[in-house]
Amino acid sequence: MEIRGGIDLGGTKIQAVVVDESAGILGDARRPTPKDGGVEGVTQAMSETLAEALQSASLDGTQLAGVGIGSPGTIDAGAGTVANAMNVVPDWKEAYPLGPIVSKLAGVPVSLGNDVQVATAAEFRLGAGEPYRSLLGVFWGTGVGGGLILDGKPWVGRGAGGEIGHMVIRRGGARCTCGRIGCMEAYAGRRAMELHARHLHEDRGRHTDLFKIMHKHDRTQLSSGIWERALREDDELAHHLIDRAVAALGAGIASAVNLLDVEAVVIGGGMGVRLGQPYVDRIVEAMHPHLFVDDRPPDVRLAELGDLGGAIGAALLATPSS
Amino acid sequence: MEIRGGIDLGGTKIQAVVVDESAGILGDARRPTPKDGGVEGVTQAMSETLAEALQSASLDGTQLAGVGIGSPGTIDAGAGTVANAMNVVPDWKEAYPLGPIVSKLAGVPVSLGNDVQVATAAEFRLGAGEPYRSLLGVFWGTGVGGGLILDGKPWVGRGAGGEIGHMVIRRGGARCTCGRIGCMEAYAGRRAMELHARHLHEDRGRHTDLFKIMHKHDRTQLSSGIWERALREDDELAHHLIDRAVAALGAGIASAVNLLDVEAVVIGGGMGVRLGQPYVDRIVEAMHPHLFVDDRPPDVRLAELGDLGGAIGAALLATPSS
Repeated sequence: MEIRGGIDLGGTKIQAVVVDESAGILGDARRPTPKDGGVEGVTQAMSETLAEALQSASLDGTQLAGVGIGSPGTIDAGAGTVANAMNVVPDWKEAYPLGPIVSKLAGVPVSLGNDVQVATAAEFRLGAGEPYRSLLGVFWGTGVGGGLILDGKPWVGRGAGGEIGHMVIRRGGARCTCGRIGCMEAYAGRRAMELHARHLHEDRGRHTDLFKIMHKHDRTQLSSGIWERALREDDELAHHLIDRAVAALGAGIASAVNLLDVEAVVIGGGMGVRLGQPYVDRIVEAMHPHLFVDDRPPDVRLAELGDLGGAIGAALLATPSS
Repeated sequence: MEIRGGIDLGGTKIQAVVVDESAGILGDARRPTPKDGGVEGVTQAMSETLAEALQSASLDGTQLAGVGIGSPGTIDAGAGTVANAMNVVPDWKEAYPLGPIVSKLAGVPVSLGNDVQVATAAEFRLGAGEPYRSLLGVFWGTGVGGGLILDGKPWVGRGAGGEIGHMVIRRGGARCTCGRIGCMEAYAGRRAMELHARHLHEDRGRHTDLFKIMHKHDRTQLSSGIWERALREDDELAHHLIDRAVAALGAGIASAVNLLDVEAVVIGGGMGVRLGQPYVDRIVEAMHPHLFVDDRPPDVRLAELGDLGGAIGAALLATPSS
C-alpha cells in the first residue's frame, strides 16, 4: 500500500493526516502551533504531528512514500522554501527551507504548496467541488483565503493569486490586519473580528460574553468554537460582528463571481466549517444583491472535507518516491 | 486579399473597420448609435457604417470575406443573438438575431462576440497586451467593462465573466446605474459620473462648467472629450469627480489583481483613451495602497489600439468564408 502524509500548517494549529492511494484517511493528529521556539520549533512540531498521525493508524515512518505540506506565506515549491509566514511565526519573513528539513526529519520526499490552494484542490478533487470545472474556494478563518480552479486547473497567476480576503469592499473603511484599508478580511477575518470585539468591549464598554466564554474554555483567542458558543447564547455583540462579517463575505464573494463567473463557490475554513450550512445560506443571501447576473447565481456549497481538507490536499501534493 | 469587417456596437456610437489578413486597417467609419428606430434602426445603421468603411477603403461588399461584431449585452455566439442590450436600445431585452440579420444585409458570414472581450483580445493579440500571457482589460467609458486573458486564452466563466465594473468597492455606498449599491461603476462609469455631476450642480448648486462646455460643443451628454476639456479648464467639480473615479478604479483593479495576480492590466475605453497616460499613471498610484503583493505590481498599460480596438477585435472574430 502506498501511504502518503499531508500536513496543513496554520497559525493556530498543525493538522496531519495519513492517507491511502485513494486519499482515504488512515490516521490523523492535530497540535497547536507552538508559539515559542521559532520556525525550528514549528518544524519539529510538524514532524511530531505527522508521527502521531502515523501512530494513530498503527503505521511507522518506513511505510510512508511521501509527504505534502500546505503552508501559508510565499511558497517556492521548487526550492522547498517558505517566506512571509508571519502568521505562523512573527519573524518568519526570510525564505526557510521547510521542505528539505521536514524531508530529513521524516526520511521521505516532501512537496510544498500554498495552504489555501491545496485545500481548494482537495475540495475540487474529493469534496464539494467535485461536480464543477470552475470554482472559488473561500476559507473563512483567522483570515479569509481564496483558491481558484478555472477550467479544471488551479489558477494562481504569478504565484500569489487567490487573495480574496484583500479585495476592497469598503474604500475608506476599516483597517485590515494586513495594514491596508477596507479589505474584506478587515470585516470577516477572525483575527480582525477579535481585535474589533476587544476594542468595542474594552474601550467602548460594549457588553459581550465573548471573552468570558473564551476564559471559561481556557482559550487565549476567540476561536471559531467560541464565536459559535456566543452566537448560541445570543450574545448581541457576537451577532453584530458575525452579521458584519457575513455582509462583507457576501459583497466580496459576489465581486469575485462578477469578475470570474465561476460555476461554484465552496465555503470552508475554521469559521465556515464550524458555523456550517445555516451561515452558508446567509452568505448566499448577502451575495445576492451584488450579483450582476442574479438569475443564475453560482452554486454555493459548504466544504465537505471540513477541518481536514487542508491536510488531505497537502497529501495529494505528495509525490510517492517509488 | 482576404478582407474582413469589424463592427463595434456601443451605446453612443457604431464603429466599423475593414482590415486585411494581418489585421491592418484599410478603412474605417463611425456613426452615432441611432436613438430612434429601435433595434431595426440600429441594425440598419451598423450595415451602413460598414458600407462606409468599405467605401473609405475604395472597396465594395463583394470583396468582404466575413464580418465580426462586438456587442454589449448577453451574446449567444452560436445562435447569433444578442439580448439585454438596454444601453443600446432601452427595450432591447429579448434575444434578437443580430448576426443573421447583419449577415443578410452584408451578404457574408457574421460572427458575434462580447464587445469588451473582443477589445481585450485585440489588445492581447495586436496591442498593449502582446507581451503577456495573462491580462485584465479595463474599458473605462460609459460604464466600466472588463475582459480577461488567462494563460493566453479568454476567460468568460459561464459566459458573463469580466464584470469588473460591478465589483463592490464600497458597501453601502453610491447607487450604480445597474441598480446595485457600491459598484466600481457607480463611481467611475461616465454615465454615473454625469448623473452625479447633474445632481450636485442642479440640486446642490455646486458650480461647474461641465454642462456649459457640453452645450457649447453641441453635445447632449458629457462625453469623454467634454470631461477632458473641463479638466483642462480646471473645473473644480470635474476634477473632484475624476479623482473619485480614479480612486474607485484603483481599488477595483487592485482587488481584481489580488484575486488573479495577472501579469498586466490594459486600460482602454473612451475615458481611458481620451485621458491617456497621465491618468493611467494616476490609476497605478491609486491601486498601490490596495495591492496585497505591492513589491511587484502588474504592468499597467494604456490600450494601444485606441478607439478602434473594439472594431479590430470584432474583425478578428470574423471567419473568412473561403
